[in-house]
Amino acid sequence: MSADFHRELGLIIGASRVLVAADDVAPFCTDWRGRYSGNALCVALPGSTEEVAAVVRACVAAGVAVVPQGGNTGLCGGATPTGGEVVVSLRRMNRIRAVDADNNSITVEAGCTLHAVQEAAREADRLFPLSLAAEGSATIGGNLSTNAGGVQVLRYGNARELTLGLEVVLADGRIWNGLRALRKDNTGYDLKHLFIGAEGTLGLITAATLKLFPRPRTHATAWVAVPDPASAVRLLGRLRDAAGDNVTAFEIVGRPALELVLRHIPNARDPLLGKPAWQVLIELGGSSDMGGDLSATLERALEAAAEDGIVNDAVLATSEAQTAALWALRENVSEAQKIEGISIKHDIAVPVSCIAEFIARADAALRAAFPEVRIVCFGHIGDGNLHYNQSRSDAQSNDEFIAQTGAVNRIVHDLVHGLGGSISAEHGLGQLKREEVLRYKSQTEMDLMRAVKQALDPRGLMNPGKLLSKVGAGALHADPASL
Amino acid sequence: MSADFHRELGLIIGASRVLVAADDVAPFCTDWRGRYSGNALCVALPGSTEEVAAVVRACVAAGVAVVPQGGNTGLCGGATPTGGEVVVSLRRMNRIRAVDADNNSITVEAGCTLHAVQEAAREADRLFPLSLAAEGSATIGGNLSTNAGGVQVLRYGNARELTLGLEVVLADGRIWNGLRALRKDNTGYDLKHLFIGAEGTLGLITAATLKLFPRPRTHATAWVAVPDPASAVRLLGRLRDAAGDNVTAFEIVGRPALELVLRHIPNARDPLLGKPAWQVLIELGGSSDMGGDLSATLERALEAAAEDGIVNDAVLATSEAQTAALWALRENVSEAQKIEGISIKHDIAVPVSCIAEFIARADAALRAAFPEVRIVCFGHIGDGNLHYNQSRSDAQSNDEFIAQTGAVNRIVHDLVHGLGGSISAEHGLGQLKREEVLRYKSQTEMDLMRAVKQALDPRGLMNPGKLLSKVGAGALHADPASL
Repeated sequence: MSADFHRELGLIIGASRVLVAADDVAPFCTDWRGRYSGNALCVALPGSTEEVAAVVRACVAAGVAVVPQGGNTGLCGGATPTGGEVVVSLRRMNRIRAVDADNNSITVEAGCTLHAVQEAAREADRLFPLSLAAEGSATIGGNLSTNAGGVQVLRYGNARELTLGLEVVLADGRIWNGLRALRKDNTGYDLKHLFIGAEGTLGLITAATLKLFPRPRTHATAWVAVPDPASAVRLLGRLRDAAGDNVTAFEIVGRPALELVLRHIPNARDPLLGKPAWQVLIELGGSSDMGGDLSATLERALEAAAEDGIVNDAVLATSEAQTAALWALRENVSEAQKIEGISIKHDIAVPVSCIAEFIARADAALRAAFPEVRIVCFGHIGDGNLHYNQSRSDAQSNDEFIAQTGAVNRIVHDLVHGLGGSISAEHGLGQLKREEVLRYKSQTEMDLMRAVKQALDPRGLMNPGKLLSKVGAGALHADPASL
Repeated sequence: MSADFHRELGLIIGASRVLVAADDVAPFCTDWRGRYSGNALCVALPGSTEEVAAVVRACVAAGVAVVPQGGNTGLCGGATPTGGEVVVSLRRMNRIRAVDADNNSITVEAGCTLHAVQEAAREADRLFPLSLAAEGSATIGGNLSTNAGGVQVLRYGNARELTLGLEVVLADGRIWNGLRALRKDNTGYDLKHLFIGAEGTLGLITAATLKLFPRPRTHATAWVAVPDPASAVRLLGRLRDAAGDNVTAFEIVGRPALELVLRHIPNARDPLLGKPAWQVLIELGGSSDMGGDLSATLERALEAAAEDGIVNDAVLATSEAQTAALWALRENVSEAQKIEGISIKHDIAVPVSCIAEFIARADAALRAAFPEVRIVCFGHIGDGNLHYNQSRSDAQSNDEFIAQTGAVNRIVHDLVHGLGGSISAEHGLGQLKREEVLRYKSQTEMDLMRAVKQALDPRGLMNPGKLLSKVGAGALHADPASL
């Protein structure tokens, strides 16, 4: 059957665009962290929406499942086949279809890298604000399918909030053209939100119309030592009072995270003396006519905060090079951490008002259970989103520690849940948290999710085994008398 | 059956909260414009989420349909019963459940008026930015169910974009608690977006967690004559370059709209000489520490625009009283129009870049077909959203004209559709546009909408006859071979 099926796909997209040889297929079958791998029947590289639709129809007819894949930079195994699927890579669909500067919108194909979208916006003197470490290889289709976050969510929102319209190949191979470039449209259910963040389990995003923004013309950047996370939250409140939405980034970096960067990243140096326990990277961005005072605004706010004991020390960048150096300290945390070995990672969110309590309680509980744990804590405190990772510093003991992942997750996730938080703030569920989430979502919510899945993909061929577990399925429409 | 059923509802919520007498029921059975009316079996006034759920379960068990109703201020008949339903009024559910200033969030029950939510935010020194004419009586549940817009969407987004979490009574009477106060949560399908803008057809929103913002501390307001709508769009682009997101409102008012206000609204006077054809109301809002220059920024931008011929004349408000007077000119257009009699109303959106083309072509086509038509055009040009209404100025001839509503709609809506626009930007579909939208949505999109409806409300008891027409239903999952 395989040979016939490959030939059929080849007739649709060209035989050279159907990868079958093991060496050709392998790179598409393992995630970039090497954590997940599976076998695929083949890899299809369609070049147009019509080709994607025809490939999906062929898969449906053959009863073969489909795994959509963009840049393959996901962190939860959402784009890795689990066995016998067709990987549909969107890489060849990388055209910028339209830029409309007056409407502040851009229409792009799913296979465009995030960086390519940013550049196309810049050429039109506009900003596409989604920004994250993998932007050079991550594709916009993957960003939308995982509702990616990053460092400017505080000001501009997640990928979801940046989306005006979508084009999607549905699970039956039909094309839904929802590429509307409108700020307002209330003509029925807003279907795009079904597919954003659905990790390819409801359909395959082939193109998107995205919001653009005026480009900030000036910046002010500071690296600030704060006594504790509670002070960081208070400082954020004051900054937003003083500078409103000119606060474009507010990132916390704990001492252990910074130490890793100082140890492993060339030319990294601590901007402040005295090894402060907690630091925040702050960026204000403004328009040309009003941005002249950004540095002064930031300085005044920091001085007032220092008088009130919320800020211990601070340095303001006075050049682009300094700004870049401060950002590098934040952006290299993951890289530096990787050099030291494996860690147990958490991508959690709680209400911003609960961040300090979360850190205090989680730190204490982990240290009680695992006295030698090293806690690397950093991230988007302005969104209530922390990357909160655990390891031990020597390799041998660390292997033992990693074996306790379940117990560590339980401590962290139970606490997150108790504070009304999320166990996956910006990375999605994929394969990694598909089962874990069952502990925390209500049966009603899981039933709703399954009802949506059943409605849009009744054959279960869209990225099976991702996001939704097969465990614990119930019926949405129970007999009301039994409730 | 009725008496038994009423008694059963009375056991759940108290007999006095089940309105049965014709006089008691009548106000809930007609929309405020008197355009739609129907009969209801009764009106239920539950006081808690549990009571709403029990009422819905009783309705499901009896096979009776449910019409959720908030302030009954909708414009499309979405909250009016069509015959034999139970109207579930949320008015008694009007508690502010929680305000979290540090997290910039508020949790409110669906029956809170929009004004009450704004006030609760203000008391916490925060802004809830949704703002529209009916805010004194419209409820937040209705705002969310119709994804309401208003005058600050340009800066803060629609009701949808202001929502963090929802509590919903589902069509089977179960309660989904999705009241998360998180900026980031990627743990599966984002179910809240199913219910926002669904006009009560998928479930009944009982509470919401909403975003708050820093309160702007300073404002600058101007009333500006522009040569034409294209100049207005260019002016908006320049203002956003100069002032970024400090541009909080940008509203266009055509001459005929302003003339109605000057004729009918006490104390209204034209701020500018020479009867300009087009004017825009501009508001900038800023934070305390950076807002001192807002007026200067606005003045500089307007002066530069005047030199380039984009602006003909302008007046800046120099007092709160002047600001209020300028806003009153914009906000009283609908009221003034009503005094002159009925008009054919359109709530349309096109890409902002197409606004000028839309107005030019629609005006020309309407004048060609109806030489004596009066076109009242005003609205949220910054969102690409116009209120574009037609009538004749003398009452007798106007009746003849109103009889041509279908033909007028066809001209306007065909043009909107051709420009990639929406025939309902911020009012929803309700009963008014339920059939009209079938002309413009693809079969695929309608099938998707019906699949969602079928999945979440398989018995069809949630607000039937609203949003979705029963005409033209197809199957979502056709045999792929037949596509």
